[in-house]
Amino acid sequence: MLKPEIVKKLIKILGKENVFTTKEDLICYSYDSTPHDHLPDIVVAPANTQEIVAIIKLANEHNFPVVPRGGGTNLSGGTVPIQGGLVLALHRMNKIIEIDTDNLTATVEPGVITATFHQTVEKEGLFYPPDPQSMFMSTMGGNVAENAGGPRGVKYGVTKDYVLGVEAVTPTGEVVKVGGKTIKNVSGYDLIRLFAGSEGTLGVITQITLKLIPKPEAKRTILAIFDHLDDAAKTVSGIIKQRIIPTTLELMDQKTMELIEGYIPSGLPTDAEGALLIEADGSAIDVDRQIGVIEQMCKTCGAREVKVAQDATQEAQLWAGRRSAFGAMARSARQVLAEDATVPRSKVPDIVRSIQQIAAKYQLTVPTLGHTGDGNMHPNILVMKQDEEEMKRVDAAIDEMFKAALDLGGTLSGEHGIGLSKQKYMKWQFDKASLDMMKAIKKAVDPNNILNPGKIFLKDE
Amino acid sequence: MLKPEIVKKLIKILGKENVFTTKEDLICYSYDSTPHDHLPDIVVAPANTQEIVAIIKLANEHNFPVVPRGGGTNLSGGTVPIQGGLVLALHRMNKIIEIDTDNLTATVEPGVITATFHQTVEKEGLFYPPDPQSMFMSTMGGNVAENAGGPRGVKYGVTKDYVLGVEAVTPTGEVVKVGGKTIKNVSGYDLIRLFAGSEGTLGVITQITLKLIPKPEAKRTILAIFDHLDDAAKTVSGIIKQRIIPTTLELMDQKTMELIEGYIPSGLPTDAEGALLIEADGSAIDVDRQIGVIEQMCKTCGAREVKVAQDATQEAQLWAGRRSAFGAMARSARQVLAEDATVPRSKVPDIVRSIQQIAAKYQLTVPTLGHTGDGNMHPNILVMKQDEEEMKRVDAAIDEMFKAALDLGGTLSGEHGIGLSKQKYMKWQFDKASLDMMKAIKKAVDPNNILNPGKIFLKDE
Repeated sequence: MLKPEIVKKLIKILGKENVFTTKEDLICYSYDSTPHDHLPDIVVAPANTQEIVAIIKLANEHNFPVVPRGGGTNLSGGTVPIQGGLVLALHRMNKIIEIDTDNLTATVEPGVITATFHQTVEKEGLFYPPDPQSMFMSTMGGNVAENAGGPRGVKYGVTKDYVLGVEAVTPTGEVVKVGGKTIKNVSGYDLIRLFAGSEGTLGVITQITLKLIPKPEAKRTILAIFDHLDDAAKTVSGIIKQRIIPTTLELMDQKTMELIEGYIPSGLPTDAEGALLIEADGSAIDVDRQIGVIEQMCKTCGAREVKVAQDATQEAQLWAGRRSAFGAMARSARQVLAEDATVPRSKVPDIVRSIQQIAAKYQLTVPTLGHTGDGNMHPNILVMKQDEEEMKRVDAAIDEMFKAALDLGGTLSGEHGIGLSKQKYMKWQFDKASLDMMKAIKKAVDPNNILNPGKIFLKDE
Repeated sequence: MLKPEIVKKLIKILGKENVFTTKEDLICYSYDSTPHDHLPDIVVAPANTQEIVAIIKLANEHNFPVVPRGGGTNLSGGTVPIQGGLVLALHRMNKIIEIDTDNLTATVEPGVITATFHQTVEKEGLFYPPDPQSMFMSTMGGNVAENAGGPRGVKYGVTKDYVLGVEAVTPTGEVVKVGGKTIKNVSGYDLIRLFAGSEGTLGVITQITLKLIPKPEAKRTILAIFDHLDDAAKTVSGIIKQRIIPTTLELMDQKTMELIEGYIPSGLPTDAEGALLIEADGSAIDVDRQIGVIEQMCKTCGAREVKVAQDATQEAQLWAGRRSAFGAMARSARQVLAEDATVPRSKVPDIVRSIQQIAAKYQLTVPTLGHTGDGNMHPNILVMKQDEEEMKRVDAAIDEMFKAALDLGGTLSGEHGIGLSKQKYMKWQFDKASLDMMKAIKKAVDPNNILNPGKIFLKDE
């Protein structure tokens, strides 16, 4: 609980209507999209940067945690106020400040919903590629803080690759502005990419300038079914050897297709080891060329069936299964733990097989799908959080999955972040010197440990 | 001068043949491609990471500066040992360790020459886009430390966009390994992009894993001559509005063309305000489409002449002028100060006009060329370093140029870095909080101020 004098000061900064202290309100901000939860002491919704400065200065004075929060769609516990304190809900700062069609940039506040941003720039003939699956709820600030990815990452990269400028409030309550509308920039250290992916531990992002690209003229989709997972993997490297980087290269495993077909049947086979959903974009003439090469490569590599969408309706049909995958999983379990162990592209068959073996060993249901083009697979563990015995098996299975990914030269997280869920694995991935360097940076920037404390690093490592 | 006992220890670490102390040797490592120079106390050429660890531990023990050095092509004084100490010459660590054609990655030591790397990966049908003009002498380690760019940056980005993994020795002599072969990675803070562009102040890069892409099947070049600079700028935005991002969009101003024609005549007009050299790449069928659109746009926007290369010979002819530009400048002056003030793309005509006005005001010759597609222009100031009166005018002119770039929403450096040359302008670009944050990071990571001291930041700011 914050002292009444602090609450009074917060009300003075924000206005009564933007300070929330009832149990109902606190519960709403106590969790994200993981099983983690913890009640904050207070929730506030600032309207601008200056209010955030005042809040953070107050937090330093009275030593309480501040946890920035966007859409709450985080998949690693990053927005859970695990040490209580104040949740900074950024939904009111949701203006798209500018779309600069000459310089192909946009400037936004952190609370803008990702999908809203997509629609707005696309109306101008422009394109913002990062497309996390949570984009209808996630915010741009959260996307930057977590360095969100998405299916289009294989061709277009992740959020970090599009951030040209950031205004942020530091953990001591100073406003920093770095970068701007220039595409190239090597003045001083890259604070932009230090903020990006720092999970709200180094600064509260209050304004973002993003690079846009011209919207591709055309796109087309192919669905290819494979009896053997290895043939799907061979197809992926075969396509790339033909000098084509598709926009998306999504793999669904057999378990995923089974669940989808049991939910909203969309014509996926349940007896095949895997399916690739491949999209190509570019100029109309070049997309046709790409699709021709991709279709041929799928067949050459042993696809048992290849469907090429001929129009938007057929395209929607091909994507229907993939889009309902998460719903299909969710309805079959009380909770879906979406992991994102990521491996080098060539190791995708190995990690998928490892996941299947681990699932069998611990008697768990783990449909796996993901962005096979960049090795970013998502094993989804279907659990009953309330079943303690099962959760023990789940924990052991997750341990083994991350170990397998790291043994294959991978990383703990491709796009979900570390948060609370993966802290204990950090020392598996990083040597002590790397962890020490990260922690030294956190300490130098946030001497009072105000911003999102207790995340990324375990206390005593 | 380092104490004899330290020299003895260095000889023990490196072998006598890799420790250099004669005046002649020291002079060779006292300068880069700027007018700055300062003699080091000693130069050593390590063979591996462990030797670097030992050297840096020794430096911390005896408190002497360590300045990492690649090809010495730096354009901001970054590799000049301004406080003496030890120069770490990395030319012996020049192995291309692996090219992974399945994962499209390469792993190299820091001393690999950039152009050698290009040639090696292109033999495998792969492509590493960053192409600093110094690529025949610059090294991959230097490119990462300075976040080198190049003409292809407009389409393909800069060095930082291709670094997936780094092994580095920290300023306290620890080895950190971050990243690897995965394209997506959000585990912990982004130390990779903190090292990249840190100009050798945060770590000695000892191994780099790079992302490669498939080599484009085809490329073609157009040269367009414009009577009016504004028409060239209109052409650039016109092309991009047609959803085409060319591989290069190079602008040469009138003064540049005059100098080229006075050196190696290559058919450039000396009475036109500017010329655009535009290259497009991709699949053969798509390159033809792009070239058609670009040619038409040049004409629509008022180009007085448009030459489209029909084969490799014609392409080489079109590039000949641009390629000899620096030579043409160098022969007309004792020294060329190549600046790289960078502005948002739409502000290119403004910055070029500002540069011309400033040059006239201070009676200087300043041919300007550069990467207009990303706003990264290079005013090249032709000077006699020995002429003190002229150098005063030069200093005043450079002050005004940077002021103009920042006023246009630009940055001090698009691809050359800050080093010594631009330290005094840092407080023009950055607020105190941003500078404090950068300096706090430096201090946290390098408590004894061992690595490349005296760079980027002025002492008392």
